Amino acid sequence: MNFSSDNVRGVAAPILNALAEGMAGAAPAYGADPVTGALEPLFADLFGCPVAVLPVVTGGAANGLALSALSPPYGGIFCHEEAHIAVDECGAPEFFTAGAKLILLPGAGGKIDPAAFEAAIERTGHRGLHGVKPAALSLTQLTEYGTAYSAAEIGALTAIAKSHGMAVHMDGARFANAVAGLAADPADLTWRAGVDMLSFGATKNGCLMAEAVIAFKPTDAVRRDLAYRRKRAGQLVSKHRFLALQLRAYLTDGLWLDLARHANRQAARLAEGLSRLPGIDLLYPVNGNEIFIDMAPGLAETLAEKGIGMNHWPDGCCRLVTAFDTDPADVDRALALAKEAAQAIAGLASGPCLD
Amino acid sequence: MNFSSDNVRGVAAPILNALAEGMAGAAPAYGADPVTGALEPLFADLFGCPVAVLPVVTGGAANGLALSALSPPYGGIFCHEEAHIAVDECGAPEFFTAGAKLILLPGAGGKIDPAAFEAAIERTGHRGLHGVKPAALSLTQLTEYGTAYSAAEIGALTAIAKSHGMAVHMDGARFANAVAGLAADPADLTWRAGVDMLSFGATKNGCLMAEAVIAFKPTDAVRRDLAYRRKRAGQLVSKHRFLALQLRAYLTDGLWLDLARHANRQAARLAEGLSRLPGIDLLYPVNGNEIFIDMAPGLAETLAEKGIGMNHWPDGCCRLVTAFDTDPADVDRALALAKEAAQAIAGLASGPCLD
Amino acid sequence: MNFSSDNVRGVAAPILNALAEGMAGAAPAYGADPVTGALEPLFADLFGCPVAVLPVVTGGAANGLALSALSPPYGGIFCHEEAHIAVDECGAPEFFTAGAKLILLPGAGGKIDPAAFEAAIERTGHRGLHGVKPAALSLTQLTEYGTAYSAAEIGALTAIAKSHGMAVHMDGARFANAVAGLAADPADLTWRAGVDMLSFGATKNGCLMAEAVIAFKPTDAVRRDLAYRRKRAGQLVSKHRFLALQLRAYLTDGLWLDLARHANRQAARLAEGLSRLPGIDLLYPVNGNEIFIDMAPGLAETLAEKGIGMNHWPDGCCRLVTAFDTDPADVDRALALAKEAAQAIAGLASGPCLD
Amino acid sequence: MNFSSDNVRGVAAPILNALAEGMAGAAPAYGADPVTGALEPLFADLFGCPVAVLPVVTGGAANGLALSALSPPYGGIFCHEEAHIAVDECGAPEFFTAGAKLILLPGAGGKIDPAAFEAAIERTGHRGLHGVKPAALSLTQLTEYGTAYSAAEIGALTAIAKSHGMAVHMDGARFANAVAGLAADPADLTWRAGVDMLSFGATKNGCLMAEAVIAFKPTDAVRRDLAYRRKRAGQLVSKHRFLALQLRAYLTDGLWLDLARHANRQAARLAEGLSRLPGIDLLYPVNGNEIFIDMAPGLAETLAEKGIGMNHWPDGCCRLVTAFDTDPADVDRALALAKEAAQAIAGLASGPCLD
Repeated sequence: MNFSSDNVRGVAAPILNALAEGMAGAAPAYGADPVTGALEPLFADLFGCPVAVLPVVTGGAANGLALSALSPPYGGIFCHEEAHIAVDECGAPEFFTAGAKLILLPGAGGKIDPAAFEAAIERTGHRGLHGVKPAALSLTQLTEYGTAYSAAEIGALTAIAKSHGMAVHMDGARFANAVAGLAADPADLTWRAGVDMLSFGATKNGCLMAEAVIAFKPTDAVRRDLAYRRKRAGQLVSKHRFLALQLRAYLTDGLWLDLARHANRQAARLAEGLSRLPGIDLLYPVNGNEIFIDMAPGLAETLAEKGIGMNHWPDGCCRLVTAFDTDPADVDRALALAKEAAQAIAGLASGPCLD
Repeated sequence: MNFSSDNVRGVAAPILNALAEGMAGAAPAYGADPVTGALEPLFADLFGCPVAVLPVVTGGAANGLALSALSPPYGGIFCHEEAHIAVDECGAPEFFTAGAKLILLPGAGGKIDPAAFEAAIERTGHRGLHGVKPAALSLTQLTEYGTAYSAAEIGALTAIAKSHGMAVHMDGARFANAVAGLAADPADLTWRAGVDMLSFGATKNGCLMAEAVIAFKPTDAVRRDLAYRRKRAGQLVSKHRFLALQLRAYLTDGLWLDLARHANRQAARLAEGLSRLPGIDLLYPVNGNEIFIDMAPGLAETLAEKGIGMNHWPDGCCRLVTAFDTDPADVDRALALAKEAAQAIAGLASGPCLD
Repeated sequence: MNFSSDNVRGVAAPILNALAEGMAGAAPAYGADPVTGALEPLFADLFGCPVAVLPVVTGGAANGLALSALSPPYGGIFCHEEAHIAVDECGAPEFFTAGAKLILLPGAGGKIDPAAFEAAIERTGHRGLHGVKPAALSLTQLTEYGTAYSAAEIGALTAIAKSHGMAVHMDGARFANAVAGLAADPADLTWRAGVDMLSFGATKNGCLMAEAVIAFKPTDAVRRDLAYRRKRAGQLVSKHRFLALQLRAYLTDGLWLDLARHANRQAARLAEGLSRLPGIDLLYPVNGNEIFIDMAPGLAETLAEKGIGMNHWPDGCCRLVTAFDTDPADVDRALALAKEAAQAIAGLASGPCLD
Repeated sequence: MNFSSDNVRGVAAPILNALAEGMAGAAPAYGADPVTGALEPLFADLFGCPVAVLPVVTGGAANGLALSALSPPYGGIFCHEEAHIAVDECGAPEFFTAGAKLILLPGAGGKIDPAAFEAAIERTGHRGLHGVKPAALSLTQLTEYGTAYSAAEIGALTAIAKSHGMAVHMDGARFANAVAGLAADPADLTWRAGVDMLSFGATKNGCLMAEAVIAFKPTDAVRRDLAYRRKRAGQLVSKHRFLALQLRAYLTDGLWLDLARHANRQAARLAEGLSRLPGIDLLYPVNGNEIFIDMAPGLAETLAEKGIGMNHWPDGCCRLVTAFDTDPADVDRALALAKEAAQAIAGLASGPCLD
């Protein structure tokens, strides 16, 4: 019952099977192979607009490359104060951009507060050359707290960015879960809502290692810029078809959404069950496959002892994540164990004279 | 009959099979899994000394990370003027090191000329602060021309480096082919000969995508430095076991050398056969799986038409590369076709009275 | 009556006169001249310990160089959320360090709150490789709000830094004003309190353009590192004696403290006078030459009309700065005008029946 | 008789006098002062076209800023193999550009060989993404060997650059000496010949420390880019008028050319005299204020003993440089001493039985 993250899981069978296709024979290296060639049409079809697609190996690389194409080294990149790019990538955005500055914004449930965004732009801009140049907004979808921005929420934030001449990036490490959770059109959550580049995540949702930078309606200059930057960052894989095979299988017959829907369903069941238990508070709406809870004292430890894996945040809250291959029986078992533990602690807490 | 490069080939069966092991269930992410944990002992055993092992996805990343750990941003990195890091990585070493300068050295057959190396250090050092600080030597093994440095040749160059306080890196994209070709102990070609860090290549020799930075006898500070740099470069793969599984299988039961020996054998046969043909000159000794030839006018075109894939260098020479899965029958077929073509052209060249 | 900043002022006569010394004849370039050679002994004497002294031209360069010597590119540099390095240098620290991350800390009166510092280190460290490596603490003396850290306050913060293996930098753009204001020994405010490197400011206090990075008890490696970095950043001035002449004159016969004391005295008089006026609130203790005030509605505008130059912060407060050459009569005049204006507005505010 | 370089000299009187103007009173900081405001019209007038002017403090900074505005981090910057940016700036171009690669070109007398330039572009371009992107050409005027490119020579090289979409930078550390030496219109040697940005040197020719990046016919985007980059590099001096005062005085009444003509005249006299001596060979035409000679064995040492300062290059040749303030009597004295020494050595060499 390992709910600590979706990147502890394995690989979906169709993805692994797809790799076998590239096993024998020869194909041009560095992305000149036909499987890679088939990716842009697939993604263009998915998003309903021309795209540039640059497969890479990690989400950190995808984010870094996209941001380096959207911000000069003296740019300011505005993001949520808990954004992955800000706190979990060891300064990769600064590395890829050659030193751009992340400007951290508050916002409930992992969503950037528009007023705080406006105020921060003004504060930075007020300093002219002494501040950095407001250059890009980076949104995370799902957010760091498992919530999903609606298309309207995205649009409100990108409108502010655009009105100041800024570009917009979306970190979509769990984009599939957001699309499945919102039952939305991918286009409505991205370019139609003002997003310029997307880090399209696939690893967490069933691939071995495959992410992609998606640039919407790219100019030739943007394409070229991204291509050089990817090569230079050591992210242009030589046997490139093994990235492309994963991504092609991932998009074929809606596999990506099937996998995400499964994960989301299990998260919904788990969240619903946990939220009924004494001593457990659901902290945010569960829009995808992540659940954040607060627990009564002692409960977290008991659940850990019972073998329910989850992540403990420094501020005391816990995160449970389901995945494309979460066994529904594991959810049932976890809920049963949690119920037992929660009731025991609640009974203990309410004292001997309770009934 | 695609001899254009070894990275156009697929994946060795044991490598692909190994991936299936990580497919189901859960394992800690980011390298905390047991398969990754098993790598350092395996490599330590292979090299006969303590090592730090940092798997990454491309050779460019391995080179960049190693160099960034060995050179300050104001350092000079000395390498052959045709070195991959100098001409084929789109400035990745400069990116990873934050701007170190590659200082290019001549040398026959892809091997750095020791006297030229000495002279270049002196020329740079003469300028004091105005020149960069001589920081690292980077050797390529196999070299860019398919030759292999002997342990003694390596030692002669690293001795110069060490006498100037410089560190030594080896780009081992085709390290397996060199070890197999020289029938040498890997330790004798690396740390015992003065190499501090090795980019250990595995992709070209039968993996999907798996390379590793190997630091010999690393201090804690070196380990930590490499670990942070890898994460920050977007090269710390989340489902890390899928890199580790490749590398474990690659080292198990000597698979890596078996694969390299096969490639080398086919290269030897191909080279031997080609060298007997009229109008074909072997340019360098074939120590591994790469063959460089000059051909009589028209011959290159004819061979291309006959479906023998090879790389055409701008200076007119051609490169043929065999691989772990080169079909011996393809070598035979290529030789037969080449013979036919070479004799035809030679006949044409020798005039109407030939028979 | 321009109190907008001390960098709008000119140059102290002994500084300008000193330049004339270097005007004629020849002297070795790039710091090999005897005047430059005399600087380290002068500073060593001032601070009572061995120092490396690297004159540069701007405070931003001094800060950037010092930080780049104290933090790896993947390091975290902790500073006050209003620190000059964070909000007024257009990302120069990120540029010089090749992408280190500034981690912003709260604290009243511009002084970092020790508990917030501890908590931030823990929060960053908790993430291991995913967070940046806590590398350096940067203090500003005078702070951004014109207050001065006491030696004990500095020691409390540096002790936290040291206990986590971090280095300590001090941005001393107004170091002279702090030393004068605290009547303290420069050594007690720096290396004896745990500071490793100081950006020693001189421009604001009477020089044309002259700052210096001071490294306390430097190893040879630190010296060399700073020297290469300064050259590479285009901060090694060729006619270096013109920087050295300024700094030598600045330190000779206590000129630097005389100039700072004058500025501080005028600030004290101005602050004292303003604080007695209705509708004016002094926001922080005036420990040097900077005064921060809140004013009743309309008062700021009236003072501006009357020709009293000051800086208006976006949050509504105003800053007045005195300098080495502030004319005491300007202070008197400003106070008289302010009194008139403040009373008029107070009268207006309190209604027609006032007297 | 110090002819080792022009940066060992002092400051021209009108430059030092100009500084006194900014000594008293107040003026807006960071370039908002009226003297700075007057610079762009002055330079626009000089060059006969709109310009952006960004004063900085060193030639290395000017070069680095200009190149960072002209080349992406993955760009290739083509320059002479002896160019100052390549061998004398400790990697500053790599630092400012975040890792662009200098591609070194041969050429007699310090002038880039056009055919070698073409070939290098082709070689780099042939590699596509694996090579860097050909981005900029950087010329040095005077060249490293004291020769001056004619307008036609510049045009021939920039035409090649332009035909490949590359930008053109000129390192004009000794631009004044070149203009004076060629008696040419500054416009003809720069933008009319295809130069986009010029590092306009003034320090070597009589200023304390003052250089400027000149962008010809700049777009708003170029202006903004340069302005942010200058600030971020710690090159936006706070008391900016002290840079502007130097440059204004330098351009006023043709002072800059008067100073350069004096230096050039003394160089011509010195070169002419030396070239007549036995055992001394003039290596290159003297187009400005630099003289390169080869000397008979022992002669260099003798001249050094006699107090004639010059620079000894590692390859054995020597450089003598005159300056704006070179005393003609020093030239006479140096020639007399050299004659004596040269004749003595020539006599010695021809043996005891000479007369």
